[in-house]
Order: sequence, then structure tokens, then C-alpha cells
Amino acid sequence: MGTCKIVVFRSADQPLALTETVIPLLKEKEILIRNEYATLCRSDLYTYTGKRIEKNPTILGHEIVGRIEAFGPGAPERDLRGNSLKIGDRITWAIFASNPESEFSKMGMPQKAEDLFKYGHEQITPDSSLHGGLSQFTILRKHTPIIKISESLALPVAAIINCAVATVSGAIRVAGNLSGKNVLICGTGMLGIIACAMARSNGASKVFATDTNAERLVISKEFGVDEILETNSGNSLKDLFLEKSDGLKSIHTLIDFSGSPDAMEEAFGLLGIGGTAVFIGATFPQRKIQIDAEQVVRKILTIKGLHNYNEQDLDTAVSFIEENQGIYPFEKLIYDGFSLEQSNEAFLYALEKNDFRVGITINSSK
Amino acid sequence: MGTCKIVVFRSADQPLALTETVIPLLKEKEILIRNEYATLCRSDLYTYTGKRIEKNPTILGHEIVGRIEAFGPGAPERDLRGNSLKIGDRITWAIFASNPESEFSKMGMPQKAEDLFKYGHEQITPDSSLHGGLSQFTILRKHTPIIKISESLALPVAAIINCAVATVSGAIRVAGNLSGKNVLICGTGMLGIIACAMARSNGASKVFATDTNAERLVISKEFGVDEILETNSGNSLKDLFLEKSDGLKSIHTLIDFSGSPDAMEEAFGLLGIGGTAVFIGATFPQRKIQIDAEQVVRKILTIKGLHNYNEQDLDTAVSFIEENQGIYPFEKLIYDGFSLEQSNEAFLYALEKNDFRVGITINSSK
Repeated sequence: MGTCKIVVFRSADQPLALTETVIPLLKEKEILIRNEYATLCRSDLYTYTGKRIEKNPTILGHEIVGRIEAFGPGAPERDLRGNSLKIGDRITWAIFASNPESEFSKMGMPQKAEDLFKYGHEQITPDSSLHGGLSQFTILRKHTPIIKISESLALPVAAIINCAVATVSGAIRVAGNLSGKNVLICGTGMLGIIACAMARSNGASKVFATDTNAERLVISKEFGVDEILETNSGNSLKDLFLEKSDGLKSIHTLIDFSGSPDAMEEAFGLLGIGGTAVFIGATFPQRKIQIDAEQVVRKILTIKGLHNYNEQDLDTAVSFIEENQGIYPFEKLIYDGFSLEQSNEAFLYALEKNDFRVGITINSSK
Repeated sequence: MGTCKIVVFRSADQPLALTETVIPLLKEKEILIRNEYATLCRSDLYTYTGKRIEKNPTILGHEIVGRIEAFGPGAPERDLRGNSLKIGDRITWAIFASNPESEFSKMGMPQKAEDLFKYGHEQITPDSSLHGGLSQFTILRKHTPIIKISESLALPVAAIINCAVATVSGAIRVAGNLSGKNVLICGTGMLGIIACAMARSNGASKVFATDTNAERLVISKEFGVDEILETNSGNSLKDLFLEKSDGLKSIHTLIDFSGSPDAMEEAFGLLGIGGTAVFIGATFPQRKIQIDAEQVVRKILTIKGLHNYNEQDLDTAVSFIEENQGIYPFEKLIYDGFSLEQSNEAFLYALEKNDFRVGITINSSK
């Protein structure tokens, strides 16, 4: 089926290498995708700089969108929603493929199944190479959740659905009903900003956002935030909250994307009776957090962790972006300036400028 | 309406005083109960010895069962289940009465409502005195959840429903579906023992129990426990678990009744992916527990606290005891040997012998 350009990551001390590979014949239930656009997730940056060790050589990039190029034998004819799939359809897909019959899949955690395969996180082997976003094509293997998306979505915004937005959808799912609740979002990077908008669109009464970064907090106000709490000023989060909360003494729900033990502990102290804390950001080794179990009991508190997301969250993410693309300026969060051939430059720009996301246009079909 | 014997607690340095009071006219929606039997809960013992400060003077005792003696004007004619109520019916009732329209009641936490009234925990005033178990009568105020119970229940077992059993029902509710799960119960006092049986009857695959008290652990084996893990022997909980778990590497659910920070931390480390910890026992000031937030995220863990219970839990507790009274030897957990007049002796016996519960027969109608 011809050849395909790929961008190979070998190690943090070598630049990415643009090369060509042969597109293999599709195996059973596989679908070939012509990649259109990828955005660089923070975990890509961590791998690129060596803060995170990934299997290698690999093709980075898992926030990605593309069009169906070809179906392998027995490939699914319908997406997760039951819509028919045909060549040329623009789709998003889960970052994972795993056996739906596995124990964890049945428990609603397919992202923890034993045979987990993660796009953008797998080693290039003679048998399998087209599994990352920084490539002209991706081969979707069997059991990959797929959703056809609207042609009206801007490609950079469509690209963030299957990692940033879907992970936030998972966070909001485990946070439970937010209608009428006062919600605190800790950390206003890409995920935190989207969470502000999603909490707002899920009926939150008040949305508070906290960060040490004043610029990000200012941007968060365009994404449904009522009050920003900048903790870089030497004030405690509690004092800031009491000052700006218009008489509220506590919050119902906090969702942490910062992963900072200090932030998690301080925010946890703001939960009122029946409150819920959702931890998402703590994906790196850190000191333990200290929790007052007596308060957990007497205030009937809940703490929930979530890593990655499930297929239901991907579905929610697609709906959220389709319904809210005109309401929140998601496109402002993606710097759209690089081609596949400029992948090294894109990484360096992302690292230096610290934008929410840096985007890479892959095929010119857009 | 005549007079009534009451046992008054004033302070930890005075014995309980048996005295008489006038039974007042019933106010709107009140029901007069002829108390039949009360059991001494651990919080009663803590108040009696001064470890816990209660409003005083008061009438202790909130694990209690009795019969309807009289209805006040407009009193409810049906119980929580819709069954009709008439004079002479044996009933159990929630330890709380609170406004069902309050914010917390609507959130499923009537035990945290602003106007909360707790039987066995209120001050005797000229207006209100018959609100504790160590008394011939109790006046149930409006908004008290009431359930008619089977005449077949032994009184000592019926008495424990509305604190011990209902609190465990709440713990099991927040623990979620236990079917097929491997469950660890920490602390095999009265609540822990009942939780073992309830986890078993809720379909748990394996029930493990841990405590430092070997005698209690032995008794737990009569309440559905598969393996006991005695942590008094110098072994870590993890080592004991791996030794006795028949190849299991982790548990799905832990429910802590010990309130011990060490136990909570050690047990938390045994949770597998998707695991849930329920904290019930930590109702006293203690050091903070240390939690690895990265594990909470990566393993998708949940921590839930619960204090007291709601009306649904009371209903579940009644069903559980009615359905399981012949299956588990609950009556062995209550030492049935004292009258209302012997209340001081009952407390001293409970403190010295450390039985699960000590029971007090109040009126001789049984």
C-alpha cells in the first residue's frame, strides 16, 4: 500500500528523525487512518525531554484526528454510537485498545486492562509501527473505540478530544452531578481550563479556579470561571477563597489537575459536608499527602482518583466539544504553526513558550 | 399521663441517677414509645467515662427498641415503608430527627441537617426530657424515621438495629456493589463483626477481617469471615494477607471501623486497581493519614467517609437483621443481664468486660 512518513523518537538526547516506512497490509479488524492533525500533550513533552521514559523507538503523539483511509478484513462498520463508518469519514479514537471482555474493562476501566495498547506509547517493531500521531498514517487495531466527528470542528480543536477533553470528561464523570455545586478547579493548564468550561456547562453554581500562574488564570475566565484564586501571592488558598467567595464557607467539589501535594491538601480543606475531591494530576512520584481521616468521616467526604478515561468519556468529550465550540474559545488554546516535518521545532516551541498545546498539521487535506 | 423512670447522666465523675419525671402531653406529630430494651454503644461508654463530652444533664442510650404507647396530634400513621402504625406495634427508629427539606437531607445526609436532633445525645430541658434509651419512655419527635419490626426478633438483637446495624448498612451502601469482591474489614468490634456478615450476605467473594484482638477475630469467623489477619503478632498486614490470601495480591474493598491511622494506611496499600476504601471508625482526633496520591490516580482508587447513616440505611438494617437472624448468631454479641435500675452496673460491666454490647431490659412487656 505504499510508504508513509513517520517521525521517530529514540531518546531524549537525539532529535526526532523523519523517515519513511512501508504501510503494511491491514490485519483483521484494523482500520487505516490518514492523520490530519496532532497536538503535543504534556506527556509527549516529558518523554521528549527525558523526564518520562517511554518504550523506544516510538512514534509520539496521541492527541490526534484523521480520516478513514481503508478498512481491513472484518473491520467495524459502525462507531461507538452506532453510526456507520465509511472511507473518508473524520474520526477520533480512544488512546487505548483493550479487550472489552477483560476484568477491568467490565468494571468500566478498559484503560487498565491487561492487554492494554496505547497509541503514541508503543514501541516500533517490525510488525507494528503506525501507532502514533507524528506519522502520516495510523493503524487502529481491533477493540479501538472510534467516534465519527462533525466536519464543522476546527482540526486543532478536534485533535485535543481524545486525550485532554476525554480525560476531563472522565474527571467530571467521577465528580458526579455538578448541578448547583460550587466547584474548585486546581491547576489551569489545558485539562484544568477545559474542566472549568465543562463544570460550567454541567450546571455548576460557581466555578473557582486556582493556580500559581496568573496568565493561565486570566485565560480561565474565558472558560466559565467565576473567581480566580492566584496562590502565588503568598496568601493561603483558604484566605483567598474566603475573600473572594462572596460569603461561601466551603466548596462541594474539587478537581485537581495540578498534581501538587500542597494544592491537593489545601483544596481538600475547603470541602464542605458531603464534598468530593477528584485527583487527576498526580501522575508523578511525589511526597504523600496528609489527610485528616476524622474529617473524612465526620464531613462524609469522598476522594476519587482517575487515570486516563473510558469509552463513555470519549463519547462525552465529542458531544461537549461539538456543543460548545462556539461558546468557549478552545482554538485559542492551540498554537497552530507546524508541519510534520517541523516536529522538532514544534517540541522546542512548546517547551519554550509553555503554551497549552502546540499543533502539528500532518496531511494537507483540511 | 403519669410519671416515668429515667436514668440521668450529669458528668463522668457522678454515677447515673435514677429518678422520675412527668410524661408530658404529646405535641404535634409526636409518638410516645414504651422502651423495651437498650444496648450500650461505645459512644455511651465514652461519655460515661468522660472521653467524650456530651450536653448534660442527658439520658444516654440510643440503641433502643420499644412499642408505640400513644400518638400525638397528627402523628404519622405509617412507617418509612408505608406500613400502618398502631398502638402496641414494636418499632425501631433512626437516632436522628431532622427536616427532610433541609439541604443536607435532600443530599441523602439527613444526619447532617442543620436542625439535627439525636436521640441519646440531647440535653434534658423543662420542655424535653424523654429522648434517650435509659428511660421507661421515649418521645419521638416529628421527622423521626420509624420502621415497624417483626415480633420474632429477640429484643437484644432488635435493639442494635438503629445504631450498629444501620451504620454498617451505610458503610456497605457507600462501599458499592460487593458481589464477587474481595473485602477486608478492619476492626472487629460490634460494627466490624456485623459488616463481615453483611459483606458476606451482599455476595462478597472473600471476606478478610483484621484486628489486634485475637478473641474478636475468632468470633468474626462465625459472621462470614473467610480469613482472619491478626496484626498483633508483629507481622505486617500486607505479609499476613499475602500469606493467607490463597494467591490474591490485592483486595477490592476495605471498610475500616478501627479508626487507627496505622490500620487505615496499611489496609489502603492492599487495594487493587479500582479499589474502594470506606472509613467509618475515625471519629476521634488523631494524626493525619498519609496517602500516595499518585497511587490514588494510577490505580483509580476511591476513599469514602461516612458518619452515622440515613433512613435508607435504617431500612436496609431492619431487612438484614430480619433475613439473617437465623444465619448469624447476633445474640451472642449482646450480654443480656441488666435492668434499668442497674444501669450503673451495666456500664461498669461493659467497661470491664469489653463485650461487644451490654443490654438493659427496660419494661417487662417482652
